[in-house]
Amino acid sequence: MKIIVQKYGGSSISTPEKIIKVAKRILELAEMGKAIAVVVSAMGDTTDRLIEMAKDISPNPPYREMDMLMATGEQVSIALLSMAINNLGGTSVSLTGAQSGIVTDGRHRNAKIKKVKIERIMNLFKEGKVVIVAGFQGISSESEITTLGRGGSDTSAAALAAALNADCCEILTDVEGVYTADPNIVNNAAKLNYISYEEMLEFAGSGAKVLHPRAVEIVMKFGIPLVVKSAHTPGNGTTIVEDKMLERVAVTGVTVDRNVAKIAIQKVPDTPGIAATIFSAISKTGINIRLIIQGISDGKYSDITMLSDKEDMESVVKVLERVCPKIKAGGVTFNDGMAEVSVIGSGIASSTGVAAKIFKTLSDNNINIDSISTSHIRIACVIDQQKVETAVKAIHRAFKLEELIRKI
Amino acid sequence: MKIIVQKYGGSSISTPEKIIKVAKRILELAEMGKAIAVVVSAMGDTTDRLIEMAKDISPNPPYREMDMLMATGEQVSIALLSMAINNLGGTSVSLTGAQSGIVTDGRHRNAKIKKVKIERIMNLFKEGKVVIVAGFQGISSESEITTLGRGGSDTSAAALAAALNADCCEILTDVEGVYTADPNIVNNAAKLNYISYEEMLEFAGSGAKVLHPRAVEIVMKFGIPLVVKSAHTPGNGTTIVEDKMLERVAVTGVTVDRNVAKIAIQKVPDTPGIAATIFSAISKTGINIRLIIQGISDGKYSDITMLSDKEDMESVVKVLERVCPKIKAGGVTFNDGMAEVSVIGSGIASSTGVAAKIFKTLSDNNINIDSISTSHIRIACVIDQQKVETAVKAIHRAFKLEELIRKI
Repeated sequence: MKIIVQKYGGSSISTPEKIIKVAKRILELAEMGKAIAVVVSAMGDTTDRLIEMAKDISPNPPYREMDMLMATGEQVSIALLSMAINNLGGTSVSLTGAQSGIVTDGRHRNAKIKKVKIERIMNLFKEGKVVIVAGFQGISSESEITTLGRGGSDTSAAALAAALNADCCEILTDVEGVYTADPNIVNNAAKLNYISYEEMLEFAGSGAKVLHPRAVEIVMKFGIPLVVKSAHTPGNGTTIVEDKMLERVAVTGVTVDRNVAKIAIQKVPDTPGIAATIFSAISKTGINIRLIIQGISDGKYSDITMLSDKEDMESVVKVLERVCPKIKAGGVTFNDGMAEVSVIGSGIASSTGVAAKIFKTLSDNNINIDSISTSHIRIACVIDQQKVETAVKAIHRAFKLEELIRKI
Repeated sequence: MKIIVQKYGGSSISTPEKIIKVAKRILELAEMGKAIAVVVSAMGDTTDRLIEMAKDISPNPPYREMDMLMATGEQVSIALLSMAINNLGGTSVSLTGAQSGIVTDGRHRNAKIKKVKIERIMNLFKEGKVVIVAGFQGISSESEITTLGRGGSDTSAAALAAALNADCCEILTDVEGVYTADPNIVNNAAKLNYISYEEMLEFAGSGAKVLHPRAVEIVMKFGIPLVVKSAHTPGNGTTIVEDKMLERVAVTGVTVDRNVAKIAIQKVPDTPGIAATIFSAISKTGINIRLIIQGISDGKYSDITMLSDKEDMESVVKVLERVCPKIKAGGVTFNDGMAEVSVIGSGIASSTGVAAKIFKTLSDNNINIDSISTSHIRIACVIDQQKVETAVKAIHRAFKLEELIRKI
C-alpha cells in the first residue's frame, strides 16, 4: 500500500468552493489506490479572527486557553473537508490532533511532537478511508490540547509522513514550487525541479515562506521524499531529494528575510566574562539571537552587534538596557529597517568566487553590506531594507538564475 | 467543599462584554469558597453559522462530521470564558467534553451520557481552580466526538451535577425563573419561587423553553437541587425541589407548545391487528408520536388521530400513505395549525373541578378543544393555534395564577 501525506494550507481551503476543489483532487489520488492522510490548516483568516476574539476578552490570555481556542480552527476545516469528500462519493474520516495520535511535549503555543501513534490511522487506511488530520495541533500525555507554533501544519504533515513511513509528503500551496527567487521581486525567476534537503532548509530558514524549516528537518532526518507543488494547478512542483543525487550547481536561489532587527551595545569594556553576562541575560528570555558580531577592540572597548527577529527587538533592548549599567557599557542602539538577503546553493562552499561576485554585485549597485554570515551552503548579507529588491534582482541576474534548470 | 454546577446558555455569552460579565459573576461565587464547574453552550448564533457552513459543502453531511464541526462552538466559548476569568485575577481551566470525562454511547448528533469520570475535575477543584466545561458534547469509548442533541448543555450540566454530587445545579438563563405562564402572553404572570421536579418535567416537556426535560430527569433521579435563574440580574429564581416538601397548589402554570401537528387516518377497517400494522410502520422511523386517539367505530370503520412534532409530520404522512392501501383505509389528513395548551400542577389529579373549569373557560371563549390528554399533574388540550393567546390568558385568569406565591 502506497502511503501519501498531503498538506493543504489555509488559503487553499478558504471558501466552500475551494474545499470542494481540494476534495476532488484528493479523491483522484484515492482512486489510484493510494492510502492518503491529508493535513489541513485553519480556513483562510480563521486564525486571525480567533486571535481577535481573544484580544477582545483579555490583553494577555493564558497560553493554555489560546491553544484551546486556536485548535478549533483546524477542527472546523477537517470536518468540512471530510463532508466534501463524502458528498462526492468518497469515504473519509476527520481526526483531531489528539485522535490522530499526535503526542506533544505539552508546551503550550510552541509544542514539539514527541511521537505519533499511528494505529488508528493505519486501521482507517485498511478500511479504505481517506484520513483528514487537523494540522498545527496535538495532545500532551496529560490530555492537554497543544499547538505547534509557527509552521505547525507543515510540521504535522512531516511528522505524520515520518511516522507512517510515507512514500511521499506533498505540501500543496499557492505557488508552483520553490523558485530561484521570489517571483514577486524577480519576474523571470525559475522554478527549481529539484533541490536538496539542506538547500530547502536554508531556503525555508531564510525567508522563503513556502515551507517551514521544522518540517524540512523532520523529513530530512527520516529520508521521506517531499514535494512542494500548487494546490490549484497540475504540475510536478519541486522535489526535495538527497544532495548526493543532484547535479551540482553553485547557486540555486536568492531569498529575502525582512524579519530582521539589528541591536548593538556600544563601548563594551574588554573584560573577560562580559559577553557571557550579556548573552546569559538574553538567553533567559528564550529569544533566539541569529547572529553575534563582536567588533574589533581599541584595546579598552569594543562594540557588540546582534541580529534578532523584529518582534523580539523590544524585549532584547529592554534586557540590554538593564545589563548595560552593570557592565559599564556605553549604551544600546537598535534598527528594525534591515533585511537579510541570502544566496543559497550546495556548491557555494566549494566554488571559489561566489562570495566575491555577490559583494561586487551589491557594491556596483551602491548597496552597503551591514554584516555577513556564511554557512557551507549559504551566504547571508544584511542590508538596508529599502535596497532589497534591487539587491535580489541584481544577484539573480549576476548568477543567471533565470536560466537554471535543476536536474537529477 | 460545596460544589456548584452552573450552566450559561449561548445568549448569555454572545458578546465579549457578556462573557466578561458572566466571568465576574462566577468569580463572586468562587470568592465565597465554593468549588464551581461552569457548563457553557456555543456563543450566540455560532451553531447556526456552523450549520450554514456545512450546508454550503454538503446537503447531507455525515452525522459524525457534523459532531466534529459543532463541537468547536462550545470549545471557543470555554476558552474565551476561561481567559476572561484569568484576566479578572481568577484561576480557571477550560475542558472539552472529552477532557471533562463525559463519556457517551457514541450515537452521533443524539448521544446519551453513559458516565462522567470526575477525577480530573475533582483534582482541579482541589487546586482551587474554576472548571469551565464545554456543554452539548462528550466522547465515546472509541474516542469519537459526539454531541448530545437538543437541550444538550442542560443535560451536560445535570449529568455533571449528579456525578459530582453537587450541592446545587444552577441554570442561568435569559428569564428570572419559571413563570405561571409565558410573560410574553400573560403580562402579569407570576414567577414561581418553588416547583416540584415532576411539575418542572411537565413544564419543560410541554413548551416552556427554560430547561430541557432530559436535564430535569437526571437531577430528579439523583435528587440534586436545581435552580433556574437570570444570568443578568440578581434574584433567587425558581428552585426545583421534591414534591412532598411543597405546599400543595392545584394549578401552578399554563404552558404552550406550538410544535404540534395532527395527522389522521380516515375510515380504518375494524380488523384486529390493523393498529399494530400502522404503529409498527411509524416506529421504524424512530419518530415519537405524542398521542393516539382511536375514534369510536361505526361497526365497520373508525378514524385514528395522532399528534407528532411539526417537523416530523411530513415523514409520518409519507409512512401512512404507504400503509393506507395495504390496510384498505380511506386516506390521510394532516394539520400543522394546531397548538397544545397544558395546565400543570401537582394537585390536579386530586382536585376535583380543575378539568371542568378549564373546559368551561375555553368554551366561554369560543375555543374548540380538538383533543385532550391528561396525566396526574397535567391536562393538555389541543386547540387551533390562532386561539392560543386567548386560551392561555383566560385560563391564567380563571385560576387566579397572577396571585400565586408558591411556598415551601
